[in-house]
Amino acid sequence: MNQLRGACIIGQSGGPTSVINASALGVIETALKSDAITQVLGAEHGIKGVLNDRLFDMGLEDPQELALLKYTPSSALGSCRYKMAGPEVDDTDYKRILEVFKKHDVRYFFYNGGNDSMDTCNKISKYMQSVGYECRVMGVPKAIDNDLWGTDHCPGFASAAKYIATSMMEIYHDVHVYDTGMIAVVEIMGRHAGWLAGASALASAYGAGPDLIYLPEVDFDMEQFIDDVKRVYEQTGNCIVAVSEGIHYKDGRFVSEAKVAANDGFGHAQLGGLAALLAEILKRETGAKVRGIELNLLQRCGAHLASKTDMEESYLAGRVAVESAVHGISDKMIGFVREVVGGQYCCQTKLISLADVANTEKKVPRKWINAAGNGVERPFINYVLPLIQGEPDLPRQDSLPRFCHLKKILAK
Amino acid sequence: MNQLRGACIIGQSGGPTSVINASALGVIETALKSDAITQVLGAEHGIKGVLNDRLFDMGLEDPQELALLKYTPSSALGSCRYKMAGPEVDDTDYKRILEVFKKHDVRYFFYNGGNDSMDTCNKISKYMQSVGYECRVMGVPKAIDNDLWGTDHCPGFASAAKYIATSMMEIYHDVHVYDTGMIAVVEIMGRHAGWLAGASALASAYGAGPDLIYLPEVDFDMEQFIDDVKRVYEQTGNCIVAVSEGIHYKDGRFVSEAKVAANDGFGHAQLGGLAALLAEILKRETGAKVRGIELNLLQRCGAHLASKTDMEESYLAGRVAVESAVHGISDKMIGFVREVVGGQYCCQTKLISLADVANTEKKVPRKWINAAGNGVERPFINYVLPLIQGEPDLPRQDSLPRFCHLKKILAK
Repeated sequence: MNQLRGACIIGQSGGPTSVINASALGVIETALKSDAITQVLGAEHGIKGVLNDRLFDMGLEDPQELALLKYTPSSALGSCRYKMAGPEVDDTDYKRILEVFKKHDVRYFFYNGGNDSMDTCNKISKYMQSVGYECRVMGVPKAIDNDLWGTDHCPGFASAAKYIATSMMEIYHDVHVYDTGMIAVVEIMGRHAGWLAGASALASAYGAGPDLIYLPEVDFDMEQFIDDVKRVYEQTGNCIVAVSEGIHYKDGRFVSEAKVAANDGFGHAQLGGLAALLAEILKRETGAKVRGIELNLLQRCGAHLASKTDMEESYLAGRVAVESAVHGISDKMIGFVREVVGGQYCCQTKLISLADVANTEKKVPRKWINAAGNGVERPFINYVLPLIQGEPDLPRQDSLPRFCHLKKILAK
Repeated sequence: MNQLRGACIIGQSGGPTSVINASALGVIETALKSDAITQVLGAEHGIKGVLNDRLFDMGLEDPQELALLKYTPSSALGSCRYKMAGPEVDDTDYKRILEVFKKHDVRYFFYNGGNDSMDTCNKISKYMQSVGYECRVMGVPKAIDNDLWGTDHCPGFASAAKYIATSMMEIYHDVHVYDTGMIAVVEIMGRHAGWLAGASALASAYGAGPDLIYLPEVDFDMEQFIDDVKRVYEQTGNCIVAVSEGIHYKDGRFVSEAKVAANDGFGHAQLGGLAALLAEILKRETGAKVRGIELNLLQRCGAHLASKTDMEESYLAGRVAVESAVHGISDKMIGFVREVVGGQYCCQTKLISLADVANTEKKVPRKWINAAGNGVERPFINYVLPLIQGEPDLPRQDSLPRFCHLKKILAK
């Protein structure tokens, strides 16, 4: 085995999740214990922290406080949305990264993010190879959207799914309180893939969920949508609808953009979101009481409803990334393989080439969506259910979450 | 003691809460055990269920399933918003109620609701007295708004407060992930009283909450609001604002209605709520990235974040209502008295005259709000904190809530 000694950097990138810090902790704790890794550096705001040489010395954190990262939502090191052009277009950033890597003797780079972040990883690794600087680069996945290619599922997805399913069951009870009837439109994250909106079907599977679900995988038809809702509302006196934020018409236009045209010039285009727009349309069409509900940021930061399975797997992805790199692996993202052992769900890791995963999106298979395109089928439920299992033992202080407070001491 | 034998009715009215069914269970379980009470009837949709003679025989429910009511949000018997005129104006409803009471030999009436429900209770009781029909009437309070007069606090408030404080801490973490800065405006329920918006300060007290809080108790000034937000945003790069839905200008106009005027005639007046409106205004004024977040129905049905203290006290209110009535008490609402015993919070019940509590609102004392009117003071935190303590042991099925399924068999 090629024992490569040097410092490592862990960075977080893209949209946060409830359990993204569990992955960071998996990297940090494993790296701190590794003989090969001489210093563990946390990049402030992802790759921006490398470019700015803003690197925290994670070895100076109190281990017990650090352990709280597992339960703390939303990229504790700070995140960024920084898309780097290839070095053949502009190598300024790459030169700077090399400079900072050399300064701190960085030989391991772990990047915790989604599609774009895997692209960043891949480019950095290729550049380092091209200039002959030995550095192992590993991707640690996260994506509430669950849209990363090559892995059974993505860390962060299941906790968001659990938040959505639980909230949907509670909303169901509230919506059914009055005898005057009500329609609720619940807007769920997912710009291009409908995994999260589909997860609301878990609530239906347990008797208290949406009647209709619309995913971006199926072209949206407003007339059909209105007919669907009217039918359920007339039959039952209520209707709960789950919609992906990314639903779009056949020509690709997002439904959420519809009001921009209607409101052109009046400056109110951004008021409310898709849920508010659809609620307004349904109000006019049905005369019913309609409420638009946007789950908003809460679905991706609601750590109090995290799935223990997701949290442990997120940690695992970070740990295995470090162990693999120390054992000579580079240019890979940690992926998950689902195994069923004695009827029990079991998750194994695998290594996926960064080049393969970068910028490819995994969508919900059409056969997992019903023929009418307004709900999901049983295989979808069977896919999600094992992932949301287990309640972590959340640290609390006076019955409120006790989240991690890092000292964030800059490395010299 | 006057031992009055007969059936009892439990009805639920007004907006639901996360723990309103804990109170119903307190009534039902205590009544089922009482020698004086011959049958326990649950009214479908509150007083409407009495008028329609839609009364469920709660004695036919499975006791173990019934016990799940404690953890199930949102008026399981169904609620209503039905305001009755006084019998001197129109006694049709009262005659009908008497008829149904006589049919089922109802001698105890328990009504679980807010201000309006206590008014209904009071009118029914006075009418029954005027026609010489012996019936004991008791109010069981609930109000997420915490605005009932004469009680230290209201069942349902603390669970909503805990949901808000916890969610606010999580939103805080999400908002601080990027270095590009962000403003978030979080809209919280409370039309006339700001207890719930104020409760968001719990999150701030634990280091991760709103910078600014606006309650309906203080007249809103848009210029001052914009200045406040700009100041915080310029100093820190971020700003989180909590607003009561009921904030209003000096002349009484709700801020949430402002866009109606601006949009007059275009039919988009109802798109989005107060958060969306304020977010739009701040976007224009600051150029920052601004997100409007409406906690919506979730704050009043998020039973997974219920306060155990609140849940137990809600049950207690129901139990004591039955015990008091059986012991000869009538025309009272159960209220709470706060006691501190050996430094520990302790809650006692008291009886409050229905006539006193009906239609009176309790607001946040001005001295508990800071001088600038954009935050709350320590006494507010000290008031709320004991109420949110404790996590109930929530029944789950496959890591999702296991809510109560009632058979709802109509009484003959």
